[in-house]
Amino acid sequence: MKLYEKVAEELSQQISQGYYQVGTKLPSIRCLSKNHSISISTAQEAYRLLEDQGIVEVKPKSGYYVRQQNSPPKLPEISRPIQRPIDVSQWHQVLDLLTSHNRHGEDLITLGRALPDYHTATLQPLLRTMASLTRDVDNLGRSQEELNGLEALRVQIARQMMHSSCQLHPDDIIITNSCQEALSISIRVTTKPGDVVAVDSPSFYGTMQTLRSLQLKVLEIPTHPETGISIEALELALEQWPITAVQVTPSCNNPLGYTMPDNRKKQLYQLAQRFDIAIIEDDIFGDLSYNTPRSNTIKSFDQDGRVILCSSFSKTIAPGFRLGWAAPGRYCDLVTHMKYVSSGCTATVPQLALADFMAQGGYERHLRKMRQQYKQSRDIMLGWLKRYLPENIRTSYPQGGFLLWIELPEMIDSVELNTRLALQNVQIAPGILFSATGKYRNCIRINYSGEPSARQETAIKKIGDEIFKMLDELETNK
Amino acid sequence: MKLYEKVAEELSQQISQGYYQVGTKLPSIRCLSKNHSISISTAQEAYRLLEDQGIVEVKPKSGYYVRQQNSPPKLPEISRPIQRPIDVSQWHQVLDLLTSHNRHGEDLITLGRALPDYHTATLQPLLRTMASLTRDVDNLGRSQEELNGLEALRVQIARQMMHSSCQLHPDDIIITNSCQEALSISIRVTTKPGDVVAVDSPSFYGTMQTLRSLQLKVLEIPTHPETGISIEALELALEQWPITAVQVTPSCNNPLGYTMPDNRKKQLYQLAQRFDIAIIEDDIFGDLSYNTPRSNTIKSFDQDGRVILCSSFSKTIAPGFRLGWAAPGRYCDLVTHMKYVSSGCTATVPQLALADFMAQGGYERHLRKMRQQYKQSRDIMLGWLKRYLPENIRTSYPQGGFLLWIELPEMIDSVELNTRLALQNVQIAPGILFSATGKYRNCIRINYSGEPSARQETAIKKIGDEIFKMLDELETNK
Ligand SMILES: Cc1ncc(COP(=O)(O)O)c(C=O)c1O
Ligand SMILES: Cc1ncc(COP(=O)(O)O)c(C=O)c1O
Repeated sequence: MKLYEKVAEELSQQISQGYYQVGTKLPSIRCLSKNHSISISTAQEAYRLLEDQGIVEVKPKSGYYVRQQNSPPKLPEISRPIQRPIDVSQWHQVLDLLTSHNRHGEDLITLGRALPDYHTATLQPLLRTMASLTRDVDNLGRSQEELNGLEALRVQIARQMMHSSCQLHPDDIIITNSCQEALSISIRVTTKPGDVVAVDSPSFYGTMQTLRSLQLKVLEIPTHPETGISIEALELALEQWPITAVQVTPSCNNPLGYTMPDNRKKQLYQLAQRFDIAIIEDDIFGDLSYNTPRSNTIKSFDQDGRVILCSSFSKTIAPGFRLGWAAPGRYCDLVTHMKYVSSGCTATVPQLALADFMAQGGYERHLRKMRQQYKQSRDIMLGWLKRYLPENIRTSYPQGGFLLWIELPEMIDSVELNTRLALQNVQIAPGILFSATGKYRNCIRINYSGEPSARQETAIKKIGDEIFKMLDELETNK
Repeated sequence: MKLYEKVAEELSQQISQGYYQVGTKLPSIRCLSKNHSISISTAQEAYRLLEDQGIVEVKPKSGYYVRQQNSPPKLPEISRPIQRPIDVSQWHQVLDLLTSHNRHGEDLITLGRALPDYHTATLQPLLRTMASLTRDVDNLGRSQEELNGLEALRVQIARQMMHSSCQLHPDDIIITNSCQEALSISIRVTTKPGDVVAVDSPSFYGTMQTLRSLQLKVLEIPTHPETGISIEALELALEQWPITAVQVTPSCNNPLGYTMPDNRKKQLYQLAQRFDIAIIEDDIFGDLSYNTPRSNTIKSFDQDGRVILCSSFSKTIAPGFRLGWAAPGRYCDLVTHMKYVSSGCTATVPQLALADFMAQGGYERHLRKMRQQYKQSRDIMLGWLKRYLPENIRTSYPQGGFLLWIELPEMIDSVELNTRLALQNVQIAPGILFSATGKYRNCIRINYSGEPSARQETAIKKIGDEIFKMLDELETNK
């Protein structure tokens, strides 16, 4: 944390503890500089940050005041997807998102991808270890060593998951090439072609495309932007349809950012138990929860091994790291077989390096930094949205991770919006990707993982401007 | 190539060109040293190598003589697998092979695994590049760059495959995590559960386990140890059963070592065309062919895109490298989708490093060394087998790669043999792994990838001793 960030954090805490009330004048720059023994410019930066976060406001020729707190944004309503099992479409739209940067080159601001910020000093120890392990040719032969992944890494993952109240033995864990592989394998071992899988909605497109590839039907369940998948709606669906598994991302959800309260997670588990179905729990953003201790995983309530917990380090470290894992409970043997046929063993060097990074405390240090940065960026992003987008939008209020869901006015077509923005080097993710059938057409998902900058702010302004333009055109054409 | 190897190679060529006849005396050590301006000890080493290869023999107090050439070994007969579609079993036996080194520790001589020799100076440039690329954090983010893999690498692979008369465009290639993933995806896009897939027999267990995981039936086709899968038997099978795809490893086959002659490859392609089925061609050992130019791939005859060519660098570089690829012909879009759901994008650093290594000529240099080393080791291994194993065994005569198939006397149970050898720290691959039903119980597969050493020779002697012991016991118990 930089010095000005520390000072800002301290002030922000004093404000939230009521030490300074809304409307009160705060210490002047000079005062702040003296009290904290910091330079004038550092004091200015601290205030600038608090201003960006919407915590303080400047009154010209007077000074800084505590602002009416950034109230949580107006949330979208509970989603209303189609209430019957359907086939997944939208592959070409997903492919388009995955390859658009190739067509638009380096300058594209890719707000549409779920890429973390990996340009951070806290990752340097990991890179150094990895580079030195790479030089040792013996490590190129070691991949065959343990089919389920290196024990040293599985030990660390088991330890890490204790933060989510999960009691895992290292042997309960199988290392994979990314979370996508973990999810893909988990779905394969719990279903057969033609089966119905229930998912939260909107939902991560990678999972839905997996269902498509396996000729599974998807049943999208209404999902609340604060509490997640509707237990009530799922129960009704279970009574009506032959569902074999439910796949959810209950902590720091992609795209909605919510974390299901622990009691709802438990209810979901009990429901699965009652109807004897498997749960595939995607926890890929779980370590990036803004609240500590982080919330429980559904897996932590698992008593009969029906929950397969899947995750990776693609969001917490970097997408190119390609290390994921599954804790498959009662499906362990099947998952081992499926992992073997899916891609054989997993590369050794990243596993060794990561095990070391975690054991040394480097991962936890890195997480602390990222959680704080992302939370700060969320508030700044929400401020920009207030400034540049129409007033009647609704947005999610992420409790972790770095993704924001925006519901635009009904008549806005976000695919069209994306096409227009591409010409201005801004890329967003249209909502249709997160539905099996192209719903959520008036929604978009953007990331706020990059450190807030003028470039980012400009991108948000462009989004806002383009929306206003589209609204105008619609008005004119009426 | 070391100096003594060069000299030995030269002599060996003169012998095979008839310059020295069988039984002729060769130049003395002193003469050789003088003629070639090499040291006495180098000359001695050259002769020692030729002796190991079975090309020359010493007559005490007389000198070196051209030996009756190592005639090709007595080959096994064409295989006779069960002639109807069946389910694949043997998973626990495969798992046992894959994990046995964990139970037996460091000292185990793993002749049972298909591991190449990667302790070679020719790989150093690759490791250096990889280590330096690893230090750059930007490369951790780049994985998302190209779903089908980095173009720079695809260009190099397309170029490399020209040696097999294959005309590939870089866009025809999709990078995967290993050959196993390429095979798995290829089978998934060409079949549906319940379908029948024809394979050569004996056949690589990874592919058969893949068929198992997809609830496919396998039909094992009689296979000749010199010419590969029987076209005639396959034709009969195609007339009788609803086969949707045929999976073969026609060049430097695992486990039989043969390379199908080009005209048989072409016939196989034409047959597939006539019955309108897909061919999944595994070429993982193809670059290690002892003959240059290497033979054609079946893919090189492909006119309508029905051949999916799969390979990786696990045998030519190292198993932990985990980079493979598929050239899926008409199945390209399906394979892209399946690769995405199977494991998302592929890690960037190994791709960048390998592209550079290939572009600089490092890969070709490395291949040249390995081909020569393996060919030499094959002849030494065949010599040891003659010395230490019963006379009535039959063995394959590999034309590339580093794997040898040995047919033991009918009554020898190679699973039992393996168990006994494990106690003596020697591991072999029992033949049952290479069949869907546990056939080939009297066969074993061993590798000769390690540079021949006293330790290796001792291992072969232990195998021989144990076989003689088992034969004795059987005799006694009669
Ligand atoms: C919810 C969720 N699950 C899984 C994945 C895939 O992660 P990985 O890159 O580790 O395959 C993503 C990536 O976007 C994701 O957002
Ligand atoms: C014929 C054959 N195909 C595929 C494979 C798997 O290779 P990879 O390690 O690249 O998945 C092997 C490895 O033993 C093999 O022998």
